[in-house]
Formats: sequence, C-alpha cells, structure tokens
Amino acid sequence: MINALFSARDERWDQYDDPLRKAFVERGLAVHLSEEIAPGEVDYIIYAPNGPVTDFAPFTRLKAVLSLWAGVEKITGNESLTVPLCRMVDPGLSEGMVEWVTGHVLRHHLGMDAHIHGQDGVWREGAAPLARNRRVGILGLGALGTACAAALRGLNFQVHGWSRRPRHVADVTCHHGDTGLAACLAQSDILVVLLPLTPETEDLLNAKRLAALPRAAFLINAGRGPLIDDDALLAALDAGQIAHATLDVFRTEPLPADHPFWAHPSVTVTPHIAAETRAETAAQVIAENIRRGEAGEDLLYVVDRSAGY
Amino acid sequence: MINALFSARDERWDQYDDPLRKAFVERGLAVHLSEEIAPGEVDYIIYAPNGPVTDFAPFTRLKAVLSLWAGVEKITGNESLTVPLCRMVDPGLSEGMVEWVTGHVLRHHLGMDAHIHGQDGVWREGAAPLARNRRVGILGLGALGTACAAALRGLNFQVHGWSRRPRHVADVTCHHGDTGLAACLAQSDILVVLLPLTPETEDLLNAKRLAALPRAAFLINAGRGPLIDDDALLAALDAGQIAHATLDVFRTEPLPADHPFWAHPSVTVTPHIAAETRAETAAQVIAENIRRGEAGEDLLYVVDRSAGY
Repeated sequence: MINALFSARDERWDQYDDPLRKAFVERGLAVHLSEEIAPGEVDYIIYAPNGPVTDFAPFTRLKAVLSLWAGVEKITGNESLTVPLCRMVDPGLSEGMVEWVTGHVLRHHLGMDAHIHGQDGVWREGAAPLARNRRVGILGLGALGTACAAALRGLNFQVHGWSRRPRHVADVTCHHGDTGLAACLAQSDILVVLLPLTPETEDLLNAKRLAALPRAAFLINAGRGPLIDDDALLAALDAGQIAHATLDVFRTEPLPADHPFWAHPSVTVTPHIAAETRAETAAQVIAENIRRGEAGEDLLYVVDRSAGY
Repeated sequence: MINALFSARDERWDQYDDPLRKAFVERGLAVHLSEEIAPGEVDYIIYAPNGPVTDFAPFTRLKAVLSLWAGVEKITGNESLTVPLCRMVDPGLSEGMVEWVTGHVLRHHLGMDAHIHGQDGVWREGAAPLARNRRVGILGLGALGTACAAALRGLNFQVHGWSRRPRHVADVTCHHGDTGLAACLAQSDILVVLLPLTPETEDLLNAKRLAALPRAAFLINAGRGPLIDDDALLAALDAGQIAHATLDVFRTEPLPADHPFWAHPSVTVTPHIAAETRAETAAQVIAENIRRGEAGEDLLYVVDRSAGY
C-alpha cells in the first residue's frame, strides 16, 4: 500500500478525491489517499503551498512532493524539503492559459474595449490591422509560453519570444539572455509575460524595460505578480508608454480593494483565472508520477531547485 | 490595351490605385485603369455597389464585373447586368474575419466583459470552462465560415456548422437544410452567423430560431444585418434567452444613433469592421481575374445569380 497525503485547501479535496482515485485505479496502483496520515508513514505528498504542510522534516520516508501548482516559487526555498519536487504541468491548465492569453491578445489587437465601452451611438469606422502585421512578444518559452506561441502563430501573428537560455520554437523569433531581452521588448506591440518567478526575474519589468517596448504597447501578465514593478507600470501607463495592462497575477492576491490597479482606466484586473489546474487532467499527472516513482522510473517535471523552476 | 473602370467611392481609389497597377504589372497586363472611361469602351468594371455605376446597359463590350465586396446581394438583382459577376474572396478579408470572429468568441467564452466592466475592487474567483467543453455553432460554411471553423477547432472548441446544402468540413459536425438548422442551433452555446443574404436567409434568425438556441446563448453576427429579425433579437435579449449579442452588420449602416441596439446593455455594436477588403490582397484577385478573362480561362469566384451568391 502506497500512502499519499493530500495537503491543500479543503475545497480542493472535494475536487480531487474522485479524479485521483480513478487515476490510481487506471494504473493498478494501490494507494491510501487521505488528508490525514502520520508523517512517518507518508510516501508522497500531493501538495499546494496554501495547505497545512509547511515543514517536510517529519516526513522521514517521503519519496517525492507532487505540486498541484505550476508555479513552485513558494516551495523551492523550503530547506526542509530534500526529496524531488515535481511541478504540475497540466494539459487542462495549459489549454486554459492558451485560451486566456489568445483571447486577451485578440482583444487588444482588435481594439475591442473601444466597442465594449463605446455604445454611444457613434459609428467609428476603421478596422484593426491584420495579425500578420502585429508583433506579439512572449517572455518565457516553457510549456505555457510555447503553447501560447503556437496558438498565436496559428492566427498569423508575428511572434517573438524570450527565454533565459537559448530556445528554438517553430516559426517564433527567439531571443535569449540579457542582450536578447531588449531586442525582444522592442518588437513587442503586445507583450505577454509568462515567466516563472525566481530571484533573477523579480521586478524584471522595471521602468527601463517598460521603456524599451514600442510606444503604446499592450502588456498582459499571466506569470506572477512580482515580475512587474507595480509603480513603474503605473507610471508607464500614465505616460502613455503602455496603452493598457491586463493583469491576472499580483504581489498580493486577492488584489487589495484599494490597490491603484483596480481604479486605473488602462488596467484590467482578472482574478488569477488564466491558468487553473483542472482536477481531471491534473490527477492523471499525479498518478503517473506515483506510478513512475514506484517503478523506479524518472519522475515527470522535476524542479531544478537551483534554477528555481 | 484593356480598359478597366474603377467604380467605387472616391476614397477607395486612393487605396486601390497603386496596388492594382502593381498587380497588373506583375502579370504583364497592359491595363488602362481609371475612374472615368466611356461606357462603350469598358472591358471590366472593378465594382462596389456604393459607387457611381448602377445601370450596366451602356457598357456594351463589358466582359465581367469584378466586385470589391464579398457580399453581392445589392448587385445580383440588377437586371441590366448580363455578364459574369465575380465576388471578392480576399485572403486579407478572410484573415480579418477569422481574427474578429475568434476574438469575440473567446471574449464571450472567457466572460471578459465582466472583467472589463467590473474594475470595482471585488475579486471574483472562477475560471471559464475549457474550450473543449464549449460548443460553437457557425451558420454558413463558405470560405469565411470554414476558415473560422478551422481557427476555432485549433483552439479546441466543439464546432457545429450549418449550410443550406450538405457540406463536409474537417472536425466540424455539419448540419444542413431546414431540419439540420434546429439541430445546429440546439448545440450552439455561442452562435456565429456568416450566411450570405438571399431571399431564403432574410430574417432566418426569427423568434422561433432564437428560441431553439440553448438558454443564455451568445450571438455573433458578422454576415448581414437582415439575417436577424431585430425585434425578435431584442425580445430574446430582454428575456435572457440570448445573454449577449455582438453585431457587426445592420439593416441600415451606419446604425442610426437612435436604434435600440446602441443603448442595450447586452448588445455590442461594431461598425462593420469584421471583414474589410484589404487593397493589397484584393488587387491581386482583381488582376488575376482580368488575366484569366483575357486568356479565356475560367474566372474565379463567379456568382451563381440564381442562388444569390
């Protein structure tokens, strides 16, 4: 019998209980799944950072921590964690992210807000340029960034991408490293931020980097809130350097009601909905990693904790 | 020398003059292109219905009328036109239509308006379902409908389509004829209308057909205004049967400032921008048809005037 501790907020248990059991049965795994198991008997922790477990030291026979979240920056610094940590790479999450990013890129590309707000009886002619004449930049070319790039290429957008290390993505102009960042920003009429949060990426989009974008660029952040310097963004919006920012992630979530982003006419706040982990598809990833762990095979999506993701 | 009369609004001349001359040169065609040529000397008319020519009788040596518009319902009934009429099938127009339709489908799918309007400091959790669990219906499976279907399938939407005659479109559940229409409507959480306007399609979306949609469906009309019974749509919106209508085309354009669509909170009016003919790409289609006409080859996109498109 394999002991798997589910450590997340209680409402997640209701979502995951059935899908996990089903995924275990499909793989012939005999798993005791519970929210309460004595630490010394736990083999795997199915984990969210806002659940009860914060100290991994008592889990003396632990084989791996399987994150329910794609972003692991709240776990990588935990020194009590000495076993492999696996990120969630959920196909449902990736699909949701592609839909949200593509939708908001098209919204800004088409200038939809003027029509959504401007139902005032005035017929304003003038169509948007074609996507083939619009440049979209994507910061972060991991699983999510690459999937968004493919969808945007499928709609004929000119796509530029940036990553810390060199990457090759089909039909995407790829930039990398510090020097590549300025080049990528300069080509981004619409910038999509999908980076992980690490010490290197915190405040990456500061006043200088925002000034490197084309005038009146659009900014879409679906990565993590601290990737952007909030004050620098507000200044760039007020100066017209950024035409509009659509933000799904924030330094503090829920975004406090008195944060200036809410009231700013050129900011759209969405409540961290771009990429939700979906229980049915995520349970398959968890079960597959437990199967691999028991079979002595390599685990999927193991975090490189020195890189932070 | 081939004589080509350009008959459209004056501002179109400024857009088309250079691209047409360039496209003629590329094909080695010696064309005299002008807004003023004696009718008896005109070989081809490059045509928009809101230009000066309404009577084709004086054009005694006319070989073909080459429409700048995709919709030809204002020309097909003209009995003075006895030579072939070619519709515009512009790749730029098709791309623009795909972008507009995909953008507004994603907008309604993601529930964007709640975020665009609701910047009130309240963090409302809850992501949209995945596109794979959302059904989009497309009325009209011509060049534009088929292109939109492919883009929506690429984003994982479940796509149903309807056409008058049977059609097969990859990965789309195709319905046809009167009996198929009700089946298609019943599967359309989001309905995209891309039909041509003919005597058979006028007022197609009447009260009965709107009632056949799932409760709280979204309606997107990028075809022609008279496809929808305006009063029936307003009643369906007020009753909540239609959650929101995004309309790009109207019985009278520009839509009069006192039309109730402007003020209705569940209607978005866009100013006939979904599919603009783009001069660079459209000029290639015009030039290619003149080349074909001169070479005695079949013309592209000849209208079947008995069908009306």
